[in-house]
Amino acid sequence: MTRQIRVAIAGYGNLGRGVEAALSQNPDMRLVGVFSRRDPSSVKLLDSNTPVYAMADIEQYQEQVDVMILCGGSKSDLPEQGPYLAKFFNTVDSFDTHAKVPEYYAALDQSARDNGRVAMLSVGWDPGLFSLNRLFGEAILPEGETYTFWGKGLSQGHSDAVRGVAGVKSGVQYTLPSEDAIARVRSGEKPELSTREKHKRECYVVLEDGADADTVRDSIVTMPNYFADFDTTVNFIDQATFAEEHSSMPHGGFVIRSGNTGTDSTQTIEYSLALGSNPEFTASVLVAYARAVYRLARVSDIGAKTVFDIAPGLLSPKSPAQLRKELL
Amino acid sequence: MTRQIRVAIAGYGNLGRGVEAALSQNPDMRLVGVFSRRDPSSVKLLDSNTPVYAMADIEQYQEQVDVMILCGGSKSDLPEQGPYLAKFFNTVDSFDTHAKVPEYYAALDQSARDNGRVAMLSVGWDPGLFSLNRLFGEAILPEGETYTFWGKGLSQGHSDAVRGVAGVKSGVQYTLPSEDAIARVRSGEKPELSTREKHKRECYVVLEDGADADTVRDSIVTMPNYFADFDTTVNFIDQATFAEEHSSMPHGGFVIRSGNTGTDSTQTIEYSLALGSNPEFTASVLVAYARAVYRLARVSDIGAKTVFDIAPGLLSPKSPAQLRKELL
Repeated sequence: MTRQIRVAIAGYGNLGRGVEAALSQNPDMRLVGVFSRRDPSSVKLLDSNTPVYAMADIEQYQEQVDVMILCGGSKSDLPEQGPYLAKFFNTVDSFDTHAKVPEYYAALDQSARDNGRVAMLSVGWDPGLFSLNRLFGEAILPEGETYTFWGKGLSQGHSDAVRGVAGVKSGVQYTLPSEDAIARVRSGEKPELSTREKHKRECYVVLEDGADADTVRDSIVTMPNYFADFDTTVNFIDQATFAEEHSSMPHGGFVIRSGNTGTDSTQTIEYSLALGSNPEFTASVLVAYARAVYRLARVSDIGAKTVFDIAPGLLSPKSPAQLRKELL
Repeated sequence: MTRQIRVAIAGYGNLGRGVEAALSQNPDMRLVGVFSRRDPSSVKLLDSNTPVYAMADIEQYQEQVDVMILCGGSKSDLPEQGPYLAKFFNTVDSFDTHAKVPEYYAALDQSARDNGRVAMLSVGWDPGLFSLNRLFGEAILPEGETYTFWGKGLSQGHSDAVRGVAGVKSGVQYTLPSEDAIARVRSGEKPELSTREKHKRECYVVLEDGADADTVRDSIVTMPNYFADFDTTVNFIDQATFAEEHSSMPHGGFVIRSGNTGTDSTQTIEYSLALGSNPEFTASVLVAYARAVYRLARVSDIGAKTVFDIAPGLLSPKSPAQLRKELL
């Protein structure tokens, strides 16, 4: 066996923790360290034997890391960290500010090429696996429509809005795909559907002592922008149930391509994810693509890359002959 | 716009006809001819302006064809035609004899490399898109199980068996995935399931005059190997209904990967196809991959290839920048 791929993590929140856990499921890889802007001694990893270093010292570790997985946020961390770290490391990140992809790609590509590195952006499930399925759908069925539905998933912004309502002690909001809309899409009908027609909203609320349920429900379902135009349900539960059933971060969704071929045959391709933990799944995708980045770096196929540029075989620890024999 | 990719078809049955139809949906490609072992004047294409040539003359056309799509059968046509045609053309085929993939790959690779060609094998949905999803599933969720279900799909062998029963005038058999088995897999339970536990069989039969329905049903559902061990239903219909509702070739299926990550979160990835026409869909996949083959040939990335070797972006007529902007 060749030596293990040496991976490091830059930024240790939910996503970084997910990467640490995912690496432990991949014996051909090894976590060599975590870099954090916090005081390293205050960062508690799942495995306390792995060293935590100060982000400020990261340049010193370039000889010890094959791939750096960037686990910062898309809003302020990655636009700066990505191009900077691509000077010293091969990188993978989950940049998801869609409108800024071209700009971020250009900055990463420049930095990676100038320094002989591979820098992979926007890896995860959306962008990522969903993007791939949108591409496959339209390439295979050029006459058709593509639909992306999200959920069941926890929405942070809408949960905050619920918690802002007077009388709400604890609250959480899930976005769900509308079964009716999915059924219409699956039938090959190719309906025109807005984002709000495709989704509904489900709230779980713990009331403050003395608060009136009907008043709280009304305040939520009529809230402009957030809930008024959606099919919204509000469920009242007690604090213990809330703690037990609503502390994980589920998510998922569907990409459906509905098209026609030849003699007007209806053809439907459907891809769906039901995720018990959104950050852990995103982390698992990042780790599989870190393997591909390592392999590209070894053949000096440098520059910025997206999931569209990666031959799927590069994701697997198996050899090409083994893949053909076992999975084709 | 660059010039159109010049495509030809070797073998004109259901699959070849599907390729002809699919090419008409892709304006960056052009069908330059069909090669057949039959008398060319007897082969009727969808578009009568496209020339039909004798298979025996195929070598003469190597300068006029960018990619040859092989539409022969896996049993006897492709093992011979594949390596032979890869001497003269870049090729794509839908070879699906799973056990012989390594051997066929080796023969194709040798021929393609010796002659500076690209030869892509086993393209379609299974092998093909389902293979890709098996690979993605286990690369992303290394601790998990992968399940492949087929159907609803017409089974030729089982339809023949039904038609062999005394008293059956017309008959057809569909294989369906068991909803119960799918539900267990989706739940994350990771059951152990045999092929027969995962599928059920549904027959549509037109009786001969005077035949007894119960006797025919009994003969079918108790037939060893074919039906005895499956949950089999037999529906009796009249000839007009049979002609109207059972003359297409639907198929499809599911690839489900169920795995666990981190803190024992259950994660499920599901890919499914519901195909109105199996040969037309397979043809559409072949045509999208023909575009990738053309692009590989232009950069002299020669030899035998499978879906595992192809960066998804190569399937799309869109530029990499356009893909990042529109689909990522």
